[in-house]
Amino acid sequence: MKHRLAMVGFGGMANWHYDLIQRIDDLEVAGIWDIKEERREYAREKGVHVYESMEDLLADESVDLVLAATPNDVHKEIAVRAMEAGKNVVSEKPVTLCSADLAVMREASERTGKFFTVHQNRRWDEDFLTVKNVLAQGKLGEVFRIESRVHGSRGIPGDWRQEPEHGGGMVLDWGVHLLDQALLLFPNEKLETVYATLTNVTNQLCDDGFTADLGFANGIHVLVEVGTSNFISLPRWYVLGADGSAVINDFGRDGKIICATGINEGDVVPVITAAGLTKTMAPRREDTIRTEEMPWADSDIRDFYKNVMAVIEGKEEPKIKLDEVARVMRLMEAIFESAETKQVVKFEA
Amino acid sequence: MKHRLAMVGFGGMANWHYDLIQRIDDLEVAGIWDIKEERREYAREKGVHVYESMEDLLADESVDLVLAATPNDVHKEIAVRAMEAGKNVVSEKPVTLCSADLAVMREASERTGKFFTVHQNRRWDEDFLTVKNVLAQGKLGEVFRIESRVHGSRGIPGDWRQEPEHGGGMVLDWGVHLLDQALLLFPNEKLETVYATLTNVTNQLCDDGFTADLGFANGIHVLVEVGTSNFISLPRWYVLGADGSAVINDFGRDGKIICATGINEGDVVPVITAAGLTKTMAPRREDTIRTEEMPWADSDIRDFYKNVMAVIEGKEEPKIKLDEVARVMRLMEAIFESAETKQVVKFEA
Repeated sequence: MKHRLAMVGFGGMANWHYDLIQRIDDLEVAGIWDIKEERREYAREKGVHVYESMEDLLADESVDLVLAATPNDVHKEIAVRAMEAGKNVVSEKPVTLCSADLAVMREASERTGKFFTVHQNRRWDEDFLTVKNVLAQGKLGEVFRIESRVHGSRGIPGDWRQEPEHGGGMVLDWGVHLLDQALLLFPNEKLETVYATLTNVTNQLCDDGFTADLGFANGIHVLVEVGTSNFISLPRWYVLGADGSAVINDFGRDGKIICATGINEGDVVPVITAAGLTKTMAPRREDTIRTEEMPWADSDIRDFYKNVMAVIEGKEEPKIKLDEVARVMRLMEAIFESAETKQVVKFEA
Repeated sequence: MKHRLAMVGFGGMANWHYDLIQRIDDLEVAGIWDIKEERREYAREKGVHVYESMEDLLADESVDLVLAATPNDVHKEIAVRAMEAGKNVVSEKPVTLCSADLAVMREASERTGKFFTVHQNRRWDEDFLTVKNVLAQGKLGEVFRIESRVHGSRGIPGDWRQEPEHGGGMVLDWGVHLLDQALLLFPNEKLETVYATLTNVTNQLCDDGFTADLGFANGIHVLVEVGTSNFISLPRWYVLGADGSAVINDFGRDGKIICATGINEGDVVPVITAAGLTKTMAPRREDTIRTEEMPWADSDIRDFYKNVMAVIEGKEEPKIKLDEVARVMRLMEAIFESAETKQVVKFEA
């Protein structure tokens, strides 16, 4: 079955969707609408059909799927209107600005019977899937701490992403991805506590970075961190288990796993520093550790749209479920609350 | 003026003191006492005078300075007895197990008029002093976050340091050093909030690692972290300012400073990942950043004892003041409270 998708908003992310869809069988872009003439003109130059208006787009009966790829504050209006016009809807992330708005969108989906999902696409990022593999393999022993970071040094992009009324800020931008991933590390564990700090280094209106310590019921702490004034980056992932550690340095295949061999070192050679000495923090002797192979994951982001089409055809369950989307939204609200009150927020405790 | 020091306890750290004192003019080791015959025998083999008993040591009128280098739980008793016997006292860190005990020790110092201080020696570590230099230079612009970590993979040393009744655990061990340093980064700022987590990976009785987020009144957050099941280490120091970042990888001279040049990159080349693209987290073009020289610090740990002697002679103020020692002790108690209650502790707010 063929599906035709219309895009509302034709900025950077919509272009990425456009290019992606060219590589997917049975899915084509019917056209776009953007409130900015320059983006409509850009679409025409690219050979993409441009509707006369949002109404015109929604009236196209050949379209069964609408992508909302606008600033975050208008996802809700577009999604609800599209579902009421009989379209299935994919919204860019974050789905909207708060849980109350998401409830309105879910209600529209239930009322109209239309499928509604969110492009939380970084579930398909290979660094994340590799960490899932590391956890599944169990080579690190009992895992007790996971750190997930993205570090840049450009501040927030200089568009609506700097403006709170449009849903700017890094919690709602990269945060939604990293938090979505974090909640999928242990999908059946309650997240009990949230402690977060925000930064306003290059932007006073929106957060331009954050740290969030997530305390799960299984005792594992996950640190999620986004920084945009980090001229030196810490690793993308850092995973600690009782018997070993794993690090992935970036989005590519650069990382390692070091595990204990079980060989006892005996007398440890201390590290001498200017002011003392330490055996506890001395490096391991080479034969007491070994490097394990990283279980690098492959993924195909086209599976997102393939799943969307299969759900519309009644053949699959959605890969990105609205309960999961809602949980991430509540978590982002808990992060804002924790940073504002300087308190730990009890989440699912 | 010559000073003679007697050591109570002759384990690993006392040996370190012994060797250090050989390199200090006007200070000599008069002898040692240890409750373990094997340590007394070790001292005799080393040619060090061994007293007949603790009483014998305290009765030596040629001794004006006593070092308490025992397990942490007996520092208090030794220090109070030594001051009452007319000796000045240096206690190993942590000074004792709780603020109430420290108050007893301070009272003894006031009552006897004897000088009492604590060997919080890592104030002389060159990595820490280099970070102080980085802050003083101001090249990073307004600093907003500092991370201080030590990572080992051996668990807690397998002696009394594993036992709560002797003051074991990593908060009281490496923690006291890193927290002492953290409080000296901004000595005049109130520390408003403390959020901490403890680990029990290799030891269920004592913490074998911790994280502590310290929120200062100036808005700066300092993360202090000790890990003993970290087979891959994160950097010793990570300092973030609005205009640049600094990293120091270990206790030696391995680190760098990267700052913005102010050159605008214009169109950013995005990083393509398996599931998306990002300009925000894309690396900088080379001409938009520059490497700055790290202001490496030198130190001489002998200055600790030189200051102790000068204080006894009435020539200097103590470098390690009991108010500072007490503040670190309260902070360690706040860390235990935060981890236990899973709440933020208001510290000096």
